[in-house]
Amino acid sequence: MSKNIKIHKLKNPLSLDCGAILKSVEIGYETYGQLNSNKTNAILICHALSGDQFVSLTNPITNKPGWWSAVIGPDKLVDTNKYFVICTNVLGGCMGSTGPMSEDENGKIYGLNFPVITISDMVRAQNQLLDDWEIPSLFAIIGGSMGGMQTLDWVANYPDRFFCAVAIATAARHSAQNIAFHEVGRQAIMADPEWQKGQYIEKNTFPNKGLAVARMAAHITYMSDSALHRKFGRNLQNRDALAFGFDADFQVESYLRHQGASFVDRFDANSYLYITRAMDYFDLAANFDGKLTNAFANFKGRACVVSFSSDWHYPPSDSRAIVRAMMAAGVHVSALEVETDKGHDAFLLDEPVFHKALEGFLDAASKEKGLK
Amino acid sequence: MSKNIKIHKLKNPLSLDCGAILKSVEIGYETYGQLNSNKTNAILICHALSGDQFVSLTNPITNKPGWWSAVIGPDKLVDTNKYFVICTNVLGGCMGSTGPMSEDENGKIYGLNFPVITISDMVRAQNQLLDDWEIPSLFAIIGGSMGGMQTLDWVANYPDRFFCAVAIATAARHSAQNIAFHEVGRQAIMADPEWQKGQYIEKNTFPNKGLAVARMAAHITYMSDSALHRKFGRNLQNRDALAFGFDADFQVESYLRHQGASFVDRFDANSYLYITRAMDYFDLAANFDGKLTNAFANFKGRACVVSFSSDWHYPPSDSRAIVRAMMAAGVHVSALEVETDKGHDAFLLDEPVFHKALEGFLDAASKEKGLK
Repeated sequence: MSKNIKIHKLKNPLSLDCGAILKSVEIGYETYGQLNSNKTNAILICHALSGDQFVSLTNPITNKPGWWSAVIGPDKLVDTNKYFVICTNVLGGCMGSTGPMSEDENGKIYGLNFPVITISDMVRAQNQLLDDWEIPSLFAIIGGSMGGMQTLDWVANYPDRFFCAVAIATAARHSAQNIAFHEVGRQAIMADPEWQKGQYIEKNTFPNKGLAVARMAAHITYMSDSALHRKFGRNLQNRDALAFGFDADFQVESYLRHQGASFVDRFDANSYLYITRAMDYFDLAANFDGKLTNAFANFKGRACVVSFSSDWHYPPSDSRAIVRAMMAAGVHVSALEVETDKGHDAFLLDEPVFHKALEGFLDAASKEKGLK
Repeated sequence: MSKNIKIHKLKNPLSLDCGAILKSVEIGYETYGQLNSNKTNAILICHALSGDQFVSLTNPITNKPGWWSAVIGPDKLVDTNKYFVICTNVLGGCMGSTGPMSEDENGKIYGLNFPVITISDMVRAQNQLLDDWEIPSLFAIIGGSMGGMQTLDWVANYPDRFFCAVAIATAARHSAQNIAFHEVGRQAIMADPEWQKGQYIEKNTFPNKGLAVARMAAHITYMSDSALHRKFGRNLQNRDALAFGFDADFQVESYLRHQGASFVDRFDANSYLYITRAMDYFDLAANFDGKLTNAFANFKGRACVVSFSSDWHYPPSDSRAIVRAMMAAGVHVSALEVETDKGHDAFLLDEPVFHKALEGFLDAASKEKGLK
């Protein structure tokens, strides 16, 4: 693993929802800013499916800006001069955390022998990391998309350990359509003979093509139809007329191919299988007698739920269901549906209305907690 | 080719939009009912991407009902006691018509040497078949989805040869999002090593896995999110609890896998590449100075445009654009947006409101033409 990836080894074994226990778990992480003396200024950022712990500044692996560096950093909306920002690579991930690429107790690469994990398992690992670091409570937990699922899981399972929950462009359970898209991606990976039934590391291959197709299919769901139309329409790629062939005639094809090709350079195929599966399995109410309100019943902090009007991956109706359940549970929840044509990806983009609202929410909560 | 497939060999060469000329073209077809003595009762049905000429009664290849047998047949809405119904397998298809599976002039299988075709090429072939059959004009042309594109192309290019145009769940041009989904499908096929750069017939292989993934991705776009939710939700497949594995836990996964697996039994992978490409290339206004109204300017017949509220593959807004342009061109167009949660597939399903409207439209037009 790259020397640029910081690793924390959990002090205790990690129990998983499937019943398995991982005796040895490493968590890749990054932090920004300083923990204050009374340990009240920590914010945990939860990343999305294809994200990682490099949320701010420059990602030392890709040398590109961290995926939320527009929002998090010195003098940014989430000001790392004030807050201590933690982001951990999710359990099952491929940026330092234990996952299918890791070796089991016998030194053998897990591959498909890695246990199937859940969003709760990811959160349980984060919680144990905070135990190990002796940080009793967080100021805030913030996450978008799959990061929002983790945030909601925190609200349900560790309601006393943090003050603010910010769940962005997410859902309390994965829809049938989203499961279907994930299944297409998994089938694309597993159809690639280079996948080698999951043992591609030992066989020194990699399912580039299958993973690229998976990413392409997923990427369409991250953008709205109108954003695709605005960005590409039917514009041709470096040509004046249709080529009557199967090269990328249209800019949108070229763009998608690029998305697929660049993804395989930074992501592991088996991690993709495991993380999409964890998202499919996410159904927060299921462990609370089927009532989402019950999941939020013990949270006394402040919640903020944000959705984007053109997001069809996690549509505003998913967020409204969260808000309804939170309100019924007596949670102080601020909710915002941002008008935008940018689709699901809006949570990562420059959305001034969203950013203003997030800033106001965090500032007010920070005053309430006496943070400076 | 199966003896159950009727073949018509075009008498003249077929000129293609790409500039190539196919000297020898065969068209797979099926007919239902009898052409009347003055040849005024013929209806051409145009099939969709994955359709074929077996529109009514029993499909002799699959032994299943024809894909629109609920609507077309003796005493049905389109009554084959009254009408002579023609359906041809599209050029580039795999049910008898010349396409990438066919042999070229030297007896070599075309594969990717088959020229890239367009919707207009498909329609030109249909038009030549009518010439050969000496049917001067049709009572109606009806098509849904890609069949609707063909119908619109008929309106634009052969406006004098038919009286009624029924375009269902379609668009005058393919959107960026639809091009993107098609590109995912094509990449999935071409990523399969069994595809053999298109020469799988010679190599005695078939890209089953790639084609199945392509079909799965496409199939999601044919259903609405709410239909998937209603039909499957998060229901588990033959199990009481999550299996913590990568088998099909959810019914929606099992359903999609079935859709993919059954598709490869009846469809050719290269045909899928060519037909999706033809759809991507479809932009009816492009050949009419960019003005859709110009495309409809010479049609003096009756038009009917139907869309379905939850169709996100060809959303109602696409149909509204057609209707606007037709009205501006002075076309007598009846338009209907059917409220349904069944998504794009609604055009093939039992939709009483749609069927009643179609029946009324055809009956009125039939009276106008003095058909009995």
